Amino acid sequence: MNINGFLFSTSEAEIKKAGRKDIALIFSEVPATAAAVFTTSAVKAAPVLVSSEHIASGTAQALIVNSGNANACTGEPGMIVARETSRLVALGLGIDVEAVQVCSTGVIGVQMPMERIEKAIPALVDGLSSGTLDDVALAIMTTDTFPKMEARSGLAGGVSYTVAGIAKGAGMIMPNMATMLSFIITDAAVEPLFLQNSFRGAVDQSFNAITVDGNMSTNDTCLIMANGMSGNPVITEGSPEGNSFTTILNDVLLSLAKQIVRDGEGATKFVEIQVSGAKDEVDAKRAAMAIANSSLVKTAFFGQDANWGRIFAAVGYSGAEVDQSRLSLCFNDVCMARNGIFAGEDAEARGTEVLKQKEFTVSVDLGIGSGTATVYTSDLTHEYISINADYRS
Amino acid sequence: MNINGFLFSTSEAEIKKAGRKDIALIFSEVPATAAAVFTTSAVKAAPVLVSSEHIASGTAQALIVNSGNANACTGEPGMIVARETSRLVALGLGIDVEAVQVCSTGVIGVQMPMERIEKAIPALVDGLSSGTLDDVALAIMTTDTFPKMEARSGLAGGVSYTVAGIAKGAGMIMPNMATMLSFIITDAAVEPLFLQNSFRGAVDQSFNAITVDGNMSTNDTCLIMANGMSGNPVITEGSPEGNSFTTILNDVLLSLAKQIVRDGEGATKFVEIQVSGAKDEVDAKRAAMAIANSSLVKTAFFGQDANWGRIFAAVGYSGAEVDQSRLSLCFNDVCMARNGIFAGEDAEARGTEVLKQKEFTVSVDLGIGSGTATVYTSDLTHEYISINADYRS
Repeated sequence: MNINGFLFSTSEAEIKKAGRKDIALIFSEVPATAAAVFTTSAVKAAPVLVSSEHIASGTAQALIVNSGNANACTGEPGMIVARETSRLVALGLGIDVEAVQVCSTGVIGVQMPMERIEKAIPALVDGLSSGTLDDVALAIMTTDTFPKMEARSGLAGGVSYTVAGIAKGAGMIMPNMATMLSFIITDAAVEPLFLQNSFRGAVDQSFNAITVDGNMSTNDTCLIMANGMSGNPVITEGSPEGNSFTTILNDVLLSLAKQIVRDGEGATKFVEIQVSGAKDEVDAKRAAMAIANSSLVKTAFFGQDANWGRIFAAVGYSGAEVDQSRLSLCFNDVCMARNGIFAGEDAEARGTEVLKQKEFTVSVDLGIGSGTATVYTSDLTHEYISINADYRS
Repeated sequence: MNINGFLFSTSEAEIKKAGRKDIALIFSEVPATAAAVFTTSAVKAAPVLVSSEHIASGTAQALIVNSGNANACTGEPGMIVARETSRLVALGLGIDVEAVQVCSTGVIGVQMPMERIEKAIPALVDGLSSGTLDDVALAIMTTDTFPKMEARSGLAGGVSYTVAGIAKGAGMIMPNMATMLSFIITDAAVEPLFLQNSFRGAVDQSFNAITVDGNMSTNDTCLIMANGMSGNPVITEGSPEGNSFTTILNDVLLSLAKQIVRDGEGATKFVEIQVSGAKDEVDAKRAAMAIANSSLVKTAFFGQDANWGRIFAAVGYSGAEVDQSRLSLCFNDVCMARNGIFAGEDAEARGTEVLKQKEFTVSVDLGIGSGTATVYTSDLTHEYISINADYRS
């Protein structure tokens, strides 16, 4: 995979255990059009605050990211670290400090060891021709069990371009960009405002449609850089090339989002929740998210228990408008309940078979309107408890 | 404990496993002033629908309750069962059907075996002088590991009266009355409107301030019956007797609510979350509930990990107004973070000692206003997963 004009390197700053890559640099040879979506939490990590200042320019040329320490709840000292990190990267690369994005993920509330970052930066800059995007995907992992990557190619004006992305995030994933980092790079030339809109749309139907445990983090960042080095004519909104670019972007982000759910902490199931027949889209998403976040529903998935009643209960308290006599529910193609009541003993046995699969779909029809939503979730398992009871120790 | 004019009986209707009491009757010898709070879920069980019709009269004389089957998501057949149950109880006791409250708890979506209930009712009516309130508390248990009871006495006009209550509910407990049944009986004479207001207030600061797993059920019911048989002068709002009655009622409900949290499915910790300094009470409760419902926070409690960063993260996404540079947090009297940052290594060790206790308090000061809220929660454990993955099997 070649994305023109992007260089990568990774290193060991010893923020995580010794012997693990925990810091990475992505560099574009030319300034790239950029857009970002950050956590909506009121408690924002220092790097989020600094990066959101920097992205205001609409361009970025470098991204430095570390795992092992979130630099969140670190007050003014944390802000100094995030600013100093971007300053040193800018200096090393000979670019503006505003062109540097800085991201962190890991433990909250512990001061970041600036001296280790400072020591790592020269090696990162020097190593820029040696690394790959795959290396970066590995270096940003925390409780992830596998690196998350996706790439697609497109054509604009006869010139081919690539959209590639990486992501991290295992637990604490929920709409509105929970503990999740995702970096998308493309060598396409894209009109800046269109890039921004297209990116926001893609984030909404991917990272904002997944949940692992209903928690949102202080550090969530989703960033795109488009450096135009494939040499294509600039892609604009409303054109066939624009539509094609949007489709490709959606595909890349949705693939990354699904990989995050599949790697949900301790997850053994991947479940697609489809809600239809809601009063409107907002209600549909409300109902879908209530199901996807219910501990009772998620433990039933883990237990392979076709307990559709818990799903109706979640829809009931979701806040969506509901007429319980119109609710229907299927596991894949097995209808478990129709018009609010159980479809019968036969359904029970067949529904249980569906839940024994590793991946299945739960579709709920509210039967009152045309609103639809799709979200993705995992089950809640013993392993989730083990991982999160022991994460810091 | 004697509550004048109330009779109790329990029986085996074989809705649960054979050999377990699963149906109970409470009867007042005279019609009682009554008030109830039901689930706010849009998916309501049949008994909830029938009981809320009946309570409109403001009086009740009998309550029939079963465990093992929730009669929820059972459509019109379920409504017929709930109506027929109250009709048969009324017939057996020689009272109006509107004077009968009917409650159910257990599995959702399975039709209730009416013939078993029909068979049990005569025995319940005949046995009314033989049972106790304690027997009823036992009969309504589902995944509860102990029966929940509380009683207090008061004085009005020189006449003593008793307020006694029972409750059930282990998992699926969350504000707005999640899978929880609670029945309060008193032989005090209380002015009807005052009873209603006083009761709603007591429910708000008890059952609506606890959470085990953030789920709300289809069947939640909290009912009070005041039959006046102690012979006291009617207690009215604003009087010293009224204030005293409210205090007693609050105490009884809060005690029952805390017992529910202590018996949270698989819980090993009981945690009081105190939020202060919020913009207003609504924001304070929002922040407290976000903490109390966070899977990450609750697994950290289980792991005895003084991970205060996860608590700040929960406050951050709670929707409450937050200035992260003003956040402070203590475990009991150990201050973990001040003005948004870590209080130091010494706090870490001392905070961990607090979390090793079975009960502790987490206090969070938002530092921007005077809103306060207190809620109660448990930890999230392996046992919770086991119980709920296997509940139906």
